[in-house]
Amino acid sequence: MLIFKKVEEIKKYLRPQQQAGKTIGFVPTMGYLHEGHLSLMRKAREECDLVVASIFVNPIQFGPGEDYDRYPRDLERDRKLAEEVGVDVLFVPEKEELYPPDYATYVEVERVSEGMCGASRPGHFRGVATVVTKLFNIVRPDRAYFGQKDAQQAVVIMQMVRDLNMDVEIRVLPVVREADGLAMSSRNVYLKGEERQAALVLYRTLKEAVELVRCGEKDPEKVRQFMADRVAAEPMARLDYAEVRQWPTLAVPTKLEGQILLALAVFIGQTRLIDNMVVEVP
Amino acid sequence: MLIFKKVEEIKKYLRPQQQAGKTIGFVPTMGYLHEGHLSLMRKAREECDLVVASIFVNPIQFGPGEDYDRYPRDLERDRKLAEEVGVDVLFVPEKEELYPPDYATYVEVERVSEGMCGASRPGHFRGVATVVTKLFNIVRPDRAYFGQKDAQQAVVIMQMVRDLNMDVEIRVLPVVREADGLAMSSRNVYLKGEERQAALVLYRTLKEAVELVRCGEKDPEKVRQFMADRVAAEPMARLDYAEVRQWPTLAVPTKLEGQILLALAVFIGQTRLIDNMVVEVP
Repeated sequence: MLIFKKVEEIKKYLRPQQQAGKTIGFVPTMGYLHEGHLSLMRKAREECDLVVASIFVNPIQFGPGEDYDRYPRDLERDRKLAEEVGVDVLFVPEKEELYPPDYATYVEVERVSEGMCGASRPGHFRGVATVVTKLFNIVRPDRAYFGQKDAQQAVVIMQMVRDLNMDVEIRVLPVVREADGLAMSSRNVYLKGEERQAALVLYRTLKEAVELVRCGEKDPEKVRQFMADRVAAEPMARLDYAEVRQWPTLAVPTKLEGQILLALAVFIGQTRLIDNMVVEVP
Repeated sequence: MLIFKKVEEIKKYLRPQQQAGKTIGFVPTMGYLHEGHLSLMRKAREECDLVVASIFVNPIQFGPGEDYDRYPRDLERDRKLAEEVGVDVLFVPEKEELYPPDYATYVEVERVSEGMCGASRPGHFRGVATVVTKLFNIVRPDRAYFGQKDAQQAVVIMQMVRDLNMDVEIRVLPVVREADGLAMSSRNVYLKGEERQAALVLYRTLKEAVELVRCGEKDPEKVRQFMADRVAAEPMARLDYAEVRQWPTLAVPTKLEGQILLALAVFIGQTRLIDNMVVEVP
């Protein structure tokens, strides 16, 4: 596995491969890899000639007071994991390599980036859209892989790719969970003592909400309120949002029909966790 | 010369050419071609294997009350001119092809797009940066050609290309002028009767300002005021802005040193014209 830290170096390596007709699968990550990331890399390995992954804790997608500084990092461990699942090229730029001092350009995706995580984290999706645009321009992948856990992020990226005519296929793969149902997240490492158990409230609530919808509930607000109530019943949890949206448009439904996204963001102590499920309503 | 109206069709034509190693020179225009545009196309013809030009009056770079609806259009004439200078591929999308109804993504270049035309035309450079990003992603040119007449636009594009790691070389070519010095512009067609003669105030003022700087004036504000006064002396002219900036950073100089951009925007009747000169101060 090759490791590059500089934009010009990775481009110099990749362009001749692309010119030779090799397809590139790309998995952008913030590192501290878990099975969720690895599932994306394995899929890229299956589908593409060359697998490129990036590890970059993107400062501009963190708000003031968020966890940019303490976001978990372990490059040595990440390097081994990426190599094990067959990543060919790892891109690990420094902050200054992607954002030099006179940096000034941002990509904004309107509408789908409003509400949900966009409301809780102003500027977050602007930061995501910007760094993904940069990484796509550097790597020029044929396919890029994102996790369904970050459902709104996936929608923002798909909208951006369509709108800006980016020549890349976006693949969104299922949430990967721990044995007890907790969605894999680099931030799970923040959970202390009893918080780990309390964090199961997201999975449990989503499962119950899916059940409620499957049993015939058609009123989005009732499902939303049900989720909010279930989270409120967990003493260690504080609801950030419970949302019921059309998938994958994120439109606010008046009645539950078609593909429905049930999404939660919950603080467990200081740790903000997100999770979601999509349910098909006939 | 091939003409494409659809994104998928031009991509389908260009990608195999690129895969075969042909270099692509790209000239994005809003049509109603004049010698300024043609000089860009001729340079692209010299430097690249395949020359692609686009004609698209980009609605999102016009503000409310600006001249989007009456912007001059003559595709038949443009087609002939482009063919004569050796354009291989002309891309002429409809508005809906680039901006479908659910369009939501915009590229913003901060700092260099503030002031000057950015102050007079809020949202203009956001529209320019967005459409150029889209066109670059569709065409994937090796080089793209812009006129120095739109000096701030050229700086915005260069900043965007650098910031977003776009794989394209930006070439900025000199202002092309009529015999009497008026900078070529599609909007010159708006000038009625005596306005055409009055429009020479831009060229004359810039030449005199260059002379003033060459004669040793080091105070940017004095040069700016000189230009404003010269424009005010023309009864048919109304100053939009007179600016003195560092080139190509657009930084506001405290003292005239290095490459200095002298830039004017002036209304002649209803018609807003821009022009500029760069002078080297030893």
